Amino acid sequence: MRRIKFIVAYDGTNYHGFAKQNNALTIQEVLEKAIFAITHEEVEVIGAGRTDTGVHAKGQCCVVDSMTQIPVYNLLKAVNSKLPKDIVIKEMIDVTKDFHPRYKAKQKTYRYQIFNGQTLDPFTYKYAYFYPYPLDVEKMIESAKYIIGTHDFKCFCSAGGGAKTTTRTVYSLDIQKIDELIQINICGNGFLYNMVRIIVGTLIEVGRGQIAPCTMEQIIASLERKKAGPTAPPEGLMMLNIEYDVK
Amino acid sequence: MRRIKFIVAYDGTNYHGFAKQNNALTIQEVLEKAIFAITHEEVEVIGAGRTDTGVHAKGQCCVVDSMTQIPVYNLLKAVNSKLPKDIVIKEMIDVTKDFHPRYKAKQKTYRYQIFNGQTLDPFTYKYAYFYPYPLDVEKMIESAKYIIGTHDFKCFCSAGGGAKTTTRTVYSLDIQKIDELIQINICGNGFLYNMVRIIVGTLIEVGRGQIAPCTMEQIIASLERKKAGPTAPPEGLMMLNIEYDVK
Repeated sequence: MRRIKFIVAYDGTNYHGFAKQNNALTIQEVLEKAIFAITHEEVEVIGAGRTDTGVHAKGQCCVVDSMTQIPVYNLLKAVNSKLPKDIVIKEMIDVTKDFHPRYKAKQKTYRYQIFNGQTLDPFTYKYAYFYPYPLDVEKMIESAKYIIGTHDFKCFCSAGGGAKTTTRTVYSLDIQKIDELIQINICGNGFLYNMVRIIVGTLIEVGRGQIAPCTMEQIIASLERKKAGPTAPPEGLMMLNIEYDVK
Repeated sequence: MRRIKFIVAYDGTNYHGFAKQNNALTIQEVLEKAIFAITHEEVEVIGAGRTDTGVHAKGQCCVVDSMTQIPVYNLLKAVNSKLPKDIVIKEMIDVTKDFHPRYKAKQKTYRYQIFNGQTLDPFTYKYAYFYPYPLDVEKMIESAKYIIGTHDFKCFCSAGGGAKTTTRTVYSLDIQKIDELIQINICGNGFLYNMVRIIVGTLIEVGRGQIAPCTMEQIIASLERKKAGPTAPPEGLMMLNIEYDVK
């Protein structure tokens, strides 16, 4: 039995998230069926993180255990030939049995995009939250610095995550505006359920002037979900990459 | 009667081009129906150029004559509310009766995108030609300089265009590679039927080493369509903008 690691990119628009469920099409199910079509094995694909409905990934990391003897280069091509165009395996490599995409992850990077133009953009509306009102990006940048570091982020956690502890470390949080597109890149050792989307929802409250940039510190200290902003919609979120010590 | 000019952006993936036709959904038809839904007038939308099936636009320029008294700011919002998300009016302005988006155009800019990665990209496959083989971009840039200037471009013209003359002026042709994406921007006083896509098809022949960069000069001088490369596929093409002397 081999353990195979692969990096998959997907447009999450047409899927009910990553994790398999009854009566709804998910990324995991489509990947497992494509692998079955090649190896005739009923495999379980394990991903580094469970992206929600409508959330995208450029670098979701997965593993699968398989008896197939097809070399990874050929297996990647064969499985891709069975996948729809909105799910593509970018890399594939053999790893040792102790590699696990979730438990071995050292660092995760997400990107959230806000399209801050007057009218919808037909090329980005699936990949960015359309927000047509004024946003003060400088204030959002100022507020973001309170999030960087190791904190109990309970205020940024939706119910239903099931994490043992709500303390996480955010290594960086960069915000830049390119024309009408605001890109927020956030990197940390792990994220709570909906944490990135709630952080973005709170930064938008700062950007539109509802709360002062420095209020972010009190929101985090409160540990109360209701003090933070709303959960920003899924289409703006992209899992960019997951880093590991070992390959 | 007013003449109203508007700039429209569209993802052409799901449409049979711009120009209205029987039994196939087109951009023009969708625009005319959306305007009808607001003004109850059966209008004719005239565009600056007829993009083909699958071709996109960020800055298609159109006019429509209407009796409506709705100010352009409100009309833009109202019509957009009747349009699907992949067709969006970006700007709208009242113009004089002598303005015509095709006859008054001084300069047109198109962009062609090639995705030159090993595996398909789920976020760009609708907006870039997926070409997974090596391309020498430096040779393509070298070859492109023969295209700039005023020439008889008959070699780059598909049958069925109906242009009176095949002489056009190309003002600039810039090629850049950003990660795996090759962007070709071409600006001229006008383009023959399929001219941009045939130029790109010929540049790809240069990039893959099938013909030398300097052969471009002989291809243009030959005036023969069969000397040039194939017509590159539509999904990579985007009408970027049209410039006018008058607003």
